[in-house]
Amino acid sequence: MANSIEVVLSPALLQAHEVHQKTVVIIDILRATSSMCVAFKTGVNKILPVAGLDECLLYREFDFLCAGERDAQKVEGFDLGNSPFEFTNPILAGRNIAFTTTNGTKAIKMARSRGAAHILIGSFLNLTAVFNQLSSMQHDVVLLCAGWKDKVNLEDTLFAGALTSMLRQQFTTECDAALSSALLYEQNRHRLDELVRQSSHARRFKLLEMQTDDVTFCLQQNICTNVPKLKGEYIFAS
Amino acid sequence: MANSIEVVLSPALLQAHEVHQKTVVIIDILRATSSMCVAFKTGVNKILPVAGLDECLLYREFDFLCAGERDAQKVEGFDLGNSPFEFTNPILAGRNIAFTTTNGTKAIKMARSRGAAHILIGSFLNLTAVFNQLSSMQHDVVLLCAGWKDKVNLEDTLFAGALTSMLRQQFTTECDAALSSALLYEQNRHRLDELVRQSSHARRFKLLEMQTDDVTFCLQQNICTNVPKLKGEYIFAS
Repeated sequence: MANSIEVVLSPALLQAHEVHQKTVVIIDILRATSSMCVAFKTGVNKILPVAGLDECLLYREFDFLCAGERDAQKVEGFDLGNSPFEFTNPILAGRNIAFTTTNGTKAIKMARSRGAAHILIGSFLNLTAVFNQLSSMQHDVVLLCAGWKDKVNLEDTLFAGALTSMLRQQFTTECDAALSSALLYEQNRHRLDELVRQSSHARRFKLLEMQTDDVTFCLQQNICTNVPKLKGEYIFAS
Repeated sequence: MANSIEVVLSPALLQAHEVHQKTVVIIDILRATSSMCVAFKTGVNKILPVAGLDECLLYREFDFLCAGERDAQKVEGFDLGNSPFEFTNPILAGRNIAFTTTNGTKAIKMARSRGAAHILIGSFLNLTAVFNQLSSMQHDVVLLCAGWKDKVNLEDTLFAGALTSMLRQQFTTECDAALSSALLYEQNRHRLDELVRQSSHARRFKLLEMQTDDVTFCLQQNICTNVPKLKGEYIFAS
């Protein structure tokens, strides 16, 4: 019997899916999970996902840098925002980061509280590495899109579709969200950048006059070979 | 300023969307909203959406017929199930029906409790009629997919996509679920039957050895010209 793959398009839908003892991939393409992959490529030691801003700042005393955003904007007093470009700085090698984001951190915590056996961090940047790991694990898989404040996100849906499309030869898919996101990816794989620029999140960036280069950066495939994984409270490179 | 259109892919996502004072279209293609459109075409007087089986049976005393399903199967002791074929019987003309289904009734009640100004019933069977009504109303629109036990459904997503695709010239769409469902419909409009037969719901029918003709029936476009609408507790033909 093949293992199963399911796609959960928003944390608000997680209640309808069984995740206990399954492998959950957290997806927050713009930008938390993309930035985490870049951070580990740069040589960051570990990342602590944190819910609140004040809690995040507390970890400074324990030699953590503070990273994160609220409403897609950098937090005052933090060392780093949530743009992947910030995590390419070689000065971060060997450092620990306390990371809080609107949606990504929330998704990680939900997966853990519902008893996931393994929690992995996925993005287009490490797509093939995640695929290889899931292929070799022989485990039921849930792809959990972080979305935006419980709404469905186009870029997370497209990544879930990409991974489903690669995995569905080996896995069973009794899940319509998996089927539809795989179709959406397969039929639009050659114009992801154009599509994601129409998304609500990309338009939000534009509204905030932030660099929309983040979109292009986060849609690059396979520039990272690590698969960040939650171990206890922390995320490590693999 | 144009009015907005949003797509909610499951009742579990409704909390993230504002529906107060908006027009909500309830979508439960397999099979509640399709069957309701057929019922009014046959000449049914009114339909009362009901949550529980026992409550449904109570209305028999008030000259209602009982219709509905649990887990896609007809309920013992009920007059009618949830297959659209059952609602084509001319004997139903002028009658009142108390209707309970797993997902459709729930979606109707959620939209009402969240203060929707108008609640309409949509299906492929009355697609153009719903489009015409929404076009003329000049009102913000939320397309609410009933899904399956809070999971996303392929057939409801495709219908939401069809309606969004027709409406998005006149409406603004700041909603990624609207964007992705419209794409999914536009890129697969010529093979809806093939796709929906792969869906979890159609496979559930097959498992139950029910007539899968229901799928083909429910994907017919524009055989009904009515737009069923909630008025107080009841749904009427328009």
